This record gives sequence, C-alpha cells and structure tokens, in this order.
Amino acid sequence: MNEYLYQEIVVGQEEGFSKEITVEMENLFRNMTDDCNPLHWDDAFAKDVGNFDSHVSFGMLSASLLSTLAGVYLPGKYSLIHSIDNISFRKPVFAGDLLYISGTVTDKQDGLNLILVKVKMTNQHNKTVLTADMKILVKK
Amino acid sequence: MNEYLYQEIVVGQEEGFSKEITVEMENLFRNMTDDCNPLHWDDAFAKDVGNFDSHVSFGMLSASLLSTLAGVYLPGKYSLIHSIDNISFRKPVFAGDLLYISGTVTDKQDGLNLILVKVKMTNQHNKTVLTADMKILVKK
Repeated sequence: MNEYLYQEIVVGQEEGFSKEITVEMENLFRNMTDDCNPLHWDDAFAKDVGNFDSHVSFGMLSASLLSTLAGVYLPGKYSLIHSIDNISFRKPVFAGDLLYISGTVTDKQDGLNLILVKVKMTNQHNKTVLTADMKILVKK
Repeated sequence: MNEYLYQEIVVGQEEGFSKEITVEMENLFRNMTDDCNPLHWDDAFAKDVGNFDSHVSFGMLSASLLSTLAGVYLPGKYSLIHSIDNISFRKPVFAGDLLYISGTVTDKQDGLNLILVKVKMTNQHNKTVLTADMKILVKK
C-alpha cells in the first residue's frame, strides 16, 4: 500500500493496477447490493435487450475499483474520497475481462489538501471501458 | 423488480428503498475490490486520521447502491446506466447505518431514451450522506 502525503504528490504522477473481473465478484456484488437485474446474470436476456454476447458485468462493480485506486495506490493509506465526477461507462465489461485501472494527478488544491485524479480503465483489448474524475483529500 | 418502459416514466416520478450497511457488506466489498485501506476496518486509525468514532464505511460501497436503484427500482428491469455525475460523499457512513436511497426523475431525453435521475441517500438521522446525478438508458 502506498502512503503518499499531500506534499509528496506531484501533478502528472500516475499509478495503476490490474484486476480481473470474475463471475465470483459479480455474485459478491449482487449479494451485497441486492441488484438482481437479469442483465447481469442472464445471458439470453442480455442478448435479447442489448445484443450482448453474454451477461454484462455491473458498471458499479468496475466503478468500485475507484476505491482501490484511491485507498491503496493514489495516494494510498492517507486518502479520503471527496467526490467523483463524470463516471462514463464507455464499453460493456464482461466476466473474464482483465482491467487496468490507472489514475493521473491533474491538479492539486493547496489549503484544501485535495488532489484531482483523472481515471481511465482499459480492458485486455486496450479499449477504454470507464473514465472518471476523482477529488481526493490527502493527509499533509 | 419494477419493469418501467421509457414511455411509462414521468418527470417527477420517485422511487426508493432502504438498506442497512453492515460489517459483512464491508468485508464483501474489501474481498471484491482488494481495497484494504485501514480507514475502513481499523477504528483506532480512523480516529487518529479523521477523528471518526469508528472505521468509516467505503464511500463506493454506498455508491454501489446506485446500481440497485437503477436496476431494480427506477426504471428496474429494462435499464442500462449511461453515466453518473457529481457523486458527492457528504457525510461518513458507518456499519449499522440504515440508508434510504431515493431517486427522482428530473428530465427525459426522447430519441436517446435517456432519463436523468437525481439521487439522494439519507441515514437514520435523516442526514444526507450521498448525492449523485445518473443518466440511465431505458428500453422503449
């Protein structure tokens, strides 16, 4: 786990990690949220409503990895997510996809101890599946 | 599970549900995301860094309930989340908190089959803990 303090972070800094999305994770997410929508488990329904090859993973499951990016990598231990803007689900994610989640610091707001992080998630085909902008409070 | 089609939804329509945040859910979220940040399990650390009474629940765990709101309630079965703006974590959420998650339709974009939903999550003290704006595609 990274332990960057506010003053150690520089604009342009980038951190990232890989994570495979699995059916087991989808089941955990469903149990946790009670979101039993068939788009996320019924392959035939997903094909019927959206012409998807199989059921589509929960968008908010991919988005949950924003928590890991902030809490473990950028800045890591001394972080508190303030807000998230512009979460855009650009392409569907499927179980078996290997995501790479990366964040780049685009600005710092001294006094507030806030960093702005532009996030991009890509899949194993190097296609962007999710983008977002996070504001994260970091301990001085 | 609600099954509203696009044309059945009206501006001003509101749907909501209650959900208790539990330590078990926090453990599921940690296992799913690998976000092992001590703010979310170590009461002493949470007190030390933020003067919190106990460990703070993951913001993205509360935000995961946006998936349930769209996928089960508003509009329910025939939904696909397009994007989420302005997720604001307004107050900390703790294990044991009972959240009420409500969404109100503020606009419809005919042709795109998009509804705009303003979301508010309140706790058992009727304090707002999270707000967000969702754009959701709905089948015609």
